[in-house]
Amino acid sequence: MAKNNTITLYDLQLASGCTISPFVWATKYALKHKGFDIDIVPGGFTGIMERTNGFSDRVPVIVDDGKWVKDSWEIAEYLDATYPDRPMLFSGDSMKVLLKFLDAWLWRVAIRPWFGCYILDYHDLSHAHDQAYVRESRETMFLQGRKLEAVQEGREERLPLVVPELEPFRELLKGTKWLGGNAPNYADYRCLAVFLWTASVAKIPPLHADDPLRDWIDRGFDLFGGLGRHPGMHNLFGLPKPDLKAAAE
Amino acid sequence: MAKNNTITLYDLQLASGCTISPFVWATKYALKHKGFDIDIVPGGFTGIMERTNGFSDRVPVIVDDGKWVKDSWEIAEYLDATYPDRPMLFSGDSMKVLLKFLDAWLWRVAIRPWFGCYILDYHDLSHAHDQAYVRESRETMFLQGRKLEAVQEGREERLPLVVPELEPFRELLKGTKWLGGNAPNYADYRCLAVFLWTASVAKIPPLHADDPLRDWIDRGFDLFGGLGRHPGMHNLFGLPKPDLKAAAE
Repeated sequence: MAKNNTITLYDLQLASGCTISPFVWATKYALKHKGFDIDIVPGGFTGIMERTNGFSDRVPVIVDDGKWVKDSWEIAEYLDATYPDRPMLFSGDSMKVLLKFLDAWLWRVAIRPWFGCYILDYHDLSHAHDQAYVRESRETMFLQGRKLEAVQEGREERLPLVVPELEPFRELLKGTKWLGGNAPNYADYRCLAVFLWTASVAKIPPLHADDPLRDWIDRGFDLFGGLGRHPGMHNLFGLPKPDLKAAAE
Repeated sequence: MAKNNTITLYDLQLASGCTISPFVWATKYALKHKGFDIDIVPGGFTGIMERTNGFSDRVPVIVDDGKWVKDSWEIAEYLDATYPDRPMLFSGDSMKVLLKFLDAWLWRVAIRPWFGCYILDYHDLSHAHDQAYVRESRETMFLQGRKLEAVQEGREERLPLVVPELEPFRELLKGTKWLGGNAPNYADYRCLAVFLWTASVAKIPPLHADDPLRDWIDRGFDLFGGLGRHPGMHNLFGLPKPDLKAAAE
């Protein structure tokens, strides 16, 4: 049982102290959903293995009264299995399976293109001591050796192309207050994490000011006393609309 | 309580007696999952209002000991609410929300293109007395007045384009035996209904013989004593692979 109702969470932060990792975001929300206080261990992209005493080279990692657990899905499952008397994150295996489909869809449709639109911001907002690692690892692992600057360039033309792709997600949220039904659960936190990640790095907004997703996103960021409202976060809404008059001329 | 453990189901059939409607298919599976025997009221596309004594112009419709219920989602919800002591179709609201996302995705990615590839088969397999209605309603409601023959033409070139689009669904099924987890539930039946509809109308197969979806589809068609194995069903597997040697020449 968590001592003093507190669980330790190893974070992944930008220089502002704002969480960047979508997986850590999902875990933060999961811990609050279960009613725990969070003892944050701050840190950036480098030195994770050292910070966690050799337990993991990736975060999130939690420590619950001496028990170490890693991986955001495993942490969520651990929390439900260990604390079934507290509000549940999942409602059965089927929900988990179906959530994985939606999560993967959001990664393809949103994170993949936005990654290329914000990768230099992502680098620039990192701790100074992380930037060499962020550049080298991202250029090598994800960008086939292309420079961050070259990948991000031209994003003003690419960002509007992502907006209509999110239409099926808007349709889904038309029919329900939360992905959890009447109250949020891990389905909401997992999907909010996509937008929390984006808000952590997006120096220019990816979505229009009147995007219907805004209602769910704003309610999600406001949960647990404004958990998603760190001052380091950027505004997701305000992408200019195409100038229809100019286009018609 | 269902008399003699039997619930009446108004069907939507082709001339072979095979169910065509994906919504009726999902309801058939739901009734069997709940352990009921089904008393089928046969019928095709026309005369539904008359058959159901003015209750509905669409099927599925069920009658449970005098209680009439329509709409496949509402029927599934009715069955869980009325018979909570029998195996559940849903595990909470969140599963329902997430299933609607996957269901809508399968309609966009699979049924929408396949509809255009099989619409003349669909017509030709209907009861003779339904064919004028099927042609007129489909050409008017869905095809902007185009002829069924013109819409279906060229499907040999279009069918291979659908195959790779199903990759995210294959990925999902790699990680789980059923969409319900260890056992099937309404998530499986709802998604199987897409392939059951297709098998009812597909005179040529839409999927390759070695498609990894085949395992889940075959297990699903075999459920409840081979509920999906009506002799009027067509083989889904056997779409020719592109001739790589010829293409390279």
